[in-house]
Amino acid sequence: MSVDNHVIESHTDVLIVGAGPSGLTAAYWMARYGIRARVIEKKETKVFNGHADGIRMRTMELFDSMGIQHRVNHEAHSAVAPGFWIPGENGTLIRKGSMIPAQVFQSPFQHMLLDQGRIERIMIDSIREHSDIEVERGVITEALEYDESMDHDPNAYPISVKIRTSSPEKEITIPSNLRLDEWEDIVRQSQKRQAKCETIKAKYIIGCDGAHSWTRRQLYIPFEGENSEHVWGVIDVVPLSNFPDIRRLGTISNITGTILIVPRERNLVRFYVPVHVINDTTTNGRYDRSDITPEKIKARVQAILSPYTFDFKIIDWWTAYQIGQRIAPSFAKGNRAFLAGDAVHTHSPKVGLGMNISMQDGFNIGWKVALVVAGVADPAILSTYNTERYRLAELLLEYDKFWSVYFTDDAKPPEDGGADKNVEMLKIVERYQDFSDGVKAFYGESPLVSKAGIETGPPFATNLVPGERVLPSKLRQHADDSMVWSMRIMKSDGLFRLVVLAGDIRSQEQKKRVDTLGHYLAGLNKSKPSILTRYASIPGGAGSIVDTLTIHSAPWNEAEFFDFPESLRPFDPVMGWGYDKIWCDHACVWDRDVDGKAYERWGVDRVRGAMFILRPDQYIGWVGELEDVDEVTRYLDGFLTQKPVSILSNGHV
Amino acid sequence: MSVDNHVIESHTDVLIVGAGPSGLTAAYWMARYGIRARVIEKKETKVFNGHADGIRMRTMELFDSMGIQHRVNHEAHSAVAPGFWIPGENGTLIRKGSMIPAQVFQSPFQHMLLDQGRIERIMIDSIREHSDIEVERGVITEALEYDESMDHDPNAYPISVKIRTSSPEKEITIPSNLRLDEWEDIVRQSQKRQAKCETIKAKYIIGCDGAHSWTRRQLYIPFEGENSEHVWGVIDVVPLSNFPDIRRLGTISNITGTILIVPRERNLVRFYVPVHVINDTTTNGRYDRSDITPEKIKARVQAILSPYTFDFKIIDWWTAYQIGQRIAPSFAKGNRAFLAGDAVHTHSPKVGLGMNISMQDGFNIGWKVALVVAGVADPAILSTYNTERYRLAELLLEYDKFWSVYFTDDAKPPEDGGADKNVEMLKIVERYQDFSDGVKAFYGESPLVSKAGIETGPPFATNLVPGERVLPSKLRQHADDSMVWSMRIMKSDGLFRLVVLAGDIRSQEQKKRVDTLGHYLAGLNKSKPSILTRYASIPGGAGSIVDTLTIHSAPWNEAEFFDFPESLRPFDPVMGWGYDKIWCDHACVWDRDVDGKAYERWGVDRVRGAMFILRPDQYIGWVGELEDVDEVTRYLDGFLTQKPVSILSNGHV
Repeated sequence: MSVDNHVIESHTDVLIVGAGPSGLTAAYWMARYGIRARVIEKKETKVFNGHADGIRMRTMELFDSMGIQHRVNHEAHSAVAPGFWIPGENGTLIRKGSMIPAQVFQSPFQHMLLDQGRIERIMIDSIREHSDIEVERGVITEALEYDESMDHDPNAYPISVKIRTSSPEKEITIPSNLRLDEWEDIVRQSQKRQAKCETIKAKYIIGCDGAHSWTRRQLYIPFEGENSEHVWGVIDVVPLSNFPDIRRLGTISNITGTILIVPRERNLVRFYVPVHVINDTTTNGRYDRSDITPEKIKARVQAILSPYTFDFKIIDWWTAYQIGQRIAPSFAKGNRAFLAGDAVHTHSPKVGLGMNISMQDGFNIGWKVALVVAGVADPAILSTYNTERYRLAELLLEYDKFWSVYFTDDAKPPEDGGADKNVEMLKIVERYQDFSDGVKAFYGESPLVSKAGIETGPPFATNLVPGERVLPSKLRQHADDSMVWSMRIMKSDGLFRLVVLAGDIRSQEQKKRVDTLGHYLAGLNKSKPSILTRYASIPGGAGSIVDTLTIHSAPWNEAEFFDFPESLRPFDPVMGWGYDKIWCDHACVWDRDVDGKAYERWGVDRVRGAMFILRPDQYIGWVGELEDVDEVTRYLDGFLTQKPVSILSNGHV
Repeated sequence: MSVDNHVIESHTDVLIVGAGPSGLTAAYWMARYGIRARVIEKKETKVFNGHADGIRMRTMELFDSMGIQHRVNHEAHSAVAPGFWIPGENGTLIRKGSMIPAQVFQSPFQHMLLDQGRIERIMIDSIREHSDIEVERGVITEALEYDESMDHDPNAYPISVKIRTSSPEKEITIPSNLRLDEWEDIVRQSQKRQAKCETIKAKYIIGCDGAHSWTRRQLYIPFEGENSEHVWGVIDVVPLSNFPDIRRLGTISNITGTILIVPRERNLVRFYVPVHVINDTTTNGRYDRSDITPEKIKARVQAILSPYTFDFKIIDWWTAYQIGQRIAPSFAKGNRAFLAGDAVHTHSPKVGLGMNISMQDGFNIGWKVALVVAGVADPAILSTYNTERYRLAELLLEYDKFWSVYFTDDAKPPEDGGADKNVEMLKIVERYQDFSDGVKAFYGESPLVSKAGIETGPPFATNLVPGERVLPSKLRQHADDSMVWSMRIMKSDGLFRLVVLAGDIRSQEQKKRVDTLGHYLAGLNKSKPSILTRYASIPGGAGSIVDTLTIHSAPWNEAEFFDFPESLRPFDPVMGWGYDKIWCDHACVWDRDVDGKAYERWGVDRVRGAMFILRPDQYIGWVGELEDVDEVTRYLDGFLTQKPVSILSNGHV
C-alpha cells in the first residue's frame, strides 16, 4: 500500500459532482444560502455549443424568480406553434397546419431555444454574483466512500471523494469565435488551476454527472431500462434550403421517415434525424458511432425534405445517439447522497425536455440540502426529493415513448390507408402538455406539501393547489407603481414566503381580519408565537427563514401603504419600510399585462382573500384563510427547526 | 524650450475626449463601423453612482436598436405617472393627482431611472463586444492644435492633441459594494496603464468633456448664458419616511418651496431640493459649495415634507449646484471638430433629460463622422450635426426655464389666492412631451432628410415623417414567427435601410409592383443601377452600405417567404437565405403586442404599401412609393460616395 504525501484533505458541506444544468442549479442554492460547497467537473472547459437547447415555460418562470430570465430571453429563439408537414400527392410535401398550445396563454413566457452552454454561462454568472463558488474543471474523481452509519450526526462527513486535478499545461480545445464572456472565463480559470490530488470530505454529495454517472455507479444504484434499436443523428447547422418552414419548429414525415426541425439562435437550425436501425445479430445491439457522419445525416435530411433542397456549409455541432430509456430506481442513497438529471433518467432528446427536468431536479434538491446543512430544516425533508422528482422522471419516459413511436413509425398519407399519426400525436401532446411545459409539478402530500386530502385548491382559493406553481400574474407594487410579474416578486432567494392575499381592506371587516393577522405576525398575540420569529435562521443570513409578501385587491389609490399592519411591511432602521412587500392587484392603464385579475386567476374572493406558503422553489406548500395561523404553524413546525426557547423574545413558546 | 524625448506621436482617425454618455455613444459608432478611434477620459475611474439617471422612451428605443435594452430594463426602475402634492388645510399636504403621459401608449418602453454609471457600463460592454476600443482613463489633455487649412484633405490629420497619462500608482477611490462587472474592469485597467506623454494626431475630434469642456475652450467656442441665483442640492438616499409617495415620481410644494422626488433602483430615492438663493452683493453670484451639506439638504426636505417625517442612514451620492443655462453658439468648428452633450448645453438637471439629449448628440455625430472617415459619405453631411442637434438643445433650455420657474416659485394653495402652478405646469409638460420623451426629433430638411416641402409624411404614408422616428410596432418574422419590436429589427448596425412596406402580395397587381422593385434592386434594370450596389462600402465591412428590410401586410400563412423577390431576401452561400429580412404585419394570437396594425400606425395603405430610407441613427431620411427608385437614388446620391465606374458590374453608371 503506497502512501501519498501529496494528497490534501479538505472539508466541504456539499460536494456537487458535475457542472451541467442540474449541477449548476443545485449550486445556485448553495450560493444563495451561503453554504460551503464545491462543484467539480471532469471536463476541461464548459460546453460551448450543441447539447440540450429546449427551454420550457416553467423553466423561464424559474429563471425569472432567479433574476436571470432577461439574459436567456435576449439570447434565445422562441418557437411556439409546432408545425407538421406530411406527404402530398406525387411525392410532394404539404404543410398540414400548426398547433398553438393552450398553455401559451398561461404564462408570459414561451417555449424558447438556446444552447445549453449559454444557459450554463448565465447560471455560472448568477452563482458567482451570490457567492465565491467557482466550478473546478479538469477534476477527475477517483474514489468515493460513503459511510451511512454517520448519517445521523449533523457534524459528520460521511462522504469521502478522492480527486485528481489535471495540470493546466494540458491542451484545451476551444472553439473559434468564442463569445467575450466565455473567453474571459477560460483565461481566469487557466490562471488558477494546478495539478493536485485531494480527498474531499463532504457532508452531502449531489451527483449530477450525466448519463454515465460515476457517482451513481459508486453508489451502486442501477440504471434500469434499455437502448432501442433506433439510432439518430443530430446536426446543428446554418441550413441552405428552399423549404419554406426550415426555420419553424415542426416535423416532416414522408415514407422514408420523420425528422424534427428545431430553429435556434444565431441562424442555427437543429435536425433530429433517424439514421438507421441496428442489426441486432451483428452488433450486439450497440451501434458503431464511427459509422455515422454528418454527410450521412445530411443525406437523410435531403431524402425526407425532397423535393425541397437541403445543404449546409456551417455545422456548429453534431452527434449520433442510440435512443435509450433508463431510470434509476432511486434518486438517493441514505440521507446524504443524491443524484439528479441524466444521472438518473435518460431518454430521447427530441422532446426538448431533458434540460428542464434536470434543472428542476437540481432546483428541488438544492434548497433542501442547503436548509438541512444550515440546521434550519429537518433532514427528513430530504426524502421528498425522491418522491417529488421520481414521478416526473417517470412521466418523462412515458411521454418520450410516444415520441419514439411517432418518429420511428413510417408515415403514409391517410389516403393510402395510413392513420394520420400527426392527429394521434397531437392528442398525446395535449395530454402531456401540462407536464411538458412544467406548469404542473404533481408534487404529492408530504411534510412540505399539505394537501389536506384534496388534489385541487381549497374552496376559497380553488386555483392555489398545494404542490403546484402559482399562476403568473403581473402585479403593481403599491408604493411605487413598479409593474412586475409574480414570478419575479416571488424571488428564489431561499426564503419560505407567507403570501397574504389581503383582499379588499376598504371593507372594515376585512381590514380587521388583516389587522388581526398582522397582530399575530408581529408576535403580539402572546398565546401564539409568530411564524416570523419562531424558527432558526440561516447562520450568517439576513433574518427569518419565513418572510411575507402581501397582495391586496383594492385600487392603489383607495388604500395606502401604511394602512397595512407593520408586520407585513416591516421597518428596517437603515433600509426603511419594506415597500417591496405590499403589492396590489389593480389594473394599470399603461401596462395591459397588469390586468387586475390575479385574484380571479387564483380563484380567490377579492374581498376576503386567503393566504399560502410558497416554498423556496416557488411551489405552494400550504393554503389557508387569514385566520388559519395554527394550521400554518403546524405545517411549518413539521420540518423547520424551532429556535431554542431561551431565544424567543418575551419567553412565549 | 525643452525637448521631451519621451513624447510618443501616434495617429488615430477619431479622437473622442470624454467617456461620459455622449462620448460613449459616439464611440459606439466607431466600434460598429470598425473605425480607428480612441476614447480618452481624465477621470481615473468611471462614474459609479449619482449623476444623471433619467432615461426617456426614445432613449430606450435606441438602446433596443443597439441590442442593450434588456440590460437597462432589468436594472432600471420605471416611473411613469408623476404625482403632485400641494398644501392642504392646517399645514397638511394632499395628493393632488398624477399625470399619465399620452406618449405612454406610443412605445413599449416607459420613463426609466438608472444610474449614469450603469448606463456607461452597459455602453462600454457593447463597445467592447464590437471592437477593441477601450476607454483610456487618467488621461490629462495638455494642448490642442487644429489646422483648419487641412480640412479638405481626407488623408490629413488636422488635429493634434498632447496628452499625459497619470501613473497607475496614483491612488484610486473605489466605492465599497462595487458590482462584480465594475470591479473586474478596474482590475483589468489598472494592469494596463502606464505613465506616458503622447501627441495624438487625429483626423477628427469629438469633445464630450462636460460642462467645463477643455475641448470647447481650446476651440475658442464660447458658452453663452448665465447662472441663476438659485442653488440646489441633490441627494441619493435610502429614505426613512412615513410619506406615502416617497417612492413615486413627483413634486411636493408648500409655502417654503418645491422639491422633486425621483425613485430609483436599489431602494434609492433622489431628492432635488432648493437650498438657498445667493446674495448677489456678497458672493459675486457664485455660491460657496462648502456651505451646503447633506444635513442642510435633509433639513430642507424635512421642512417641505412636514408633517411627514424624513431621514436617512444611507446616502449613496450628493451634490450641490447652481442652476445655469448655457449653450454654445455652434456645436462644431470647421469640419473636423465637434462638441456634444454638456460641453455645448447645460441646464437644470431636474427635467431628467440631460443624459438623453447628450447620448442622442453622440448618436447623431458618431455615424456621420465614421461614414466620412470611411470614405462612404460626403464630408458635407457633417454640418447637419449642428443643424439637427442645436434646435433640440434650444428646446431643452426653453423647457428647462419653465421648470426653473415652477421649482423656485413658492406654492400657495389656490384657496389662498395662489394660482395652481401644477395645473399650469401640466400644460407646459404636455406641450413639450413629444420633445422630452424624444418621440419627435424635429430634424429639418437637409441632404440627409428629404422633406419635399411638407412637415408630415406624404399622403400615402402620413405617419412616416422624414426627420422623425418610426412609430414602434411589434412584427412577426415571416419565416420563423419571431415576434420582435420594430426598433430591434431596425438595428443600429451602421447601415442605411430601405424599408419596403410591400403591402399585400396576394393582390396580383401589388405582387407585380413588388417584383418590379425587386428586379430593379437586383440590378437587372440596365438603365437604373441599383442602390444596393451603387455606393462605396465601409473598408473591411460586410457589404453594401444600403440594406433592405421588407414588411408585408398579408397573413403569414397566405404568402410564402419565397414569394418575395430574391433581392429582398438575398442568398449567401454560407449563411443561406436572408430570413431576417422579410417581416409580416400580421396579428399573433399568443403575443397580443403583435396586433397586425403597423401599417395603420404608419398611415400606409395595406395593399399598396410604401417605402422609406432609415438612416443609421433610426430616423427617416426619405419616403416614397414602390416605383420611386429615381427619387431614392437621387436622395442617396446626395451624400453617399458612388463606386468608381470600373467597379460597377456590367459597366452601368
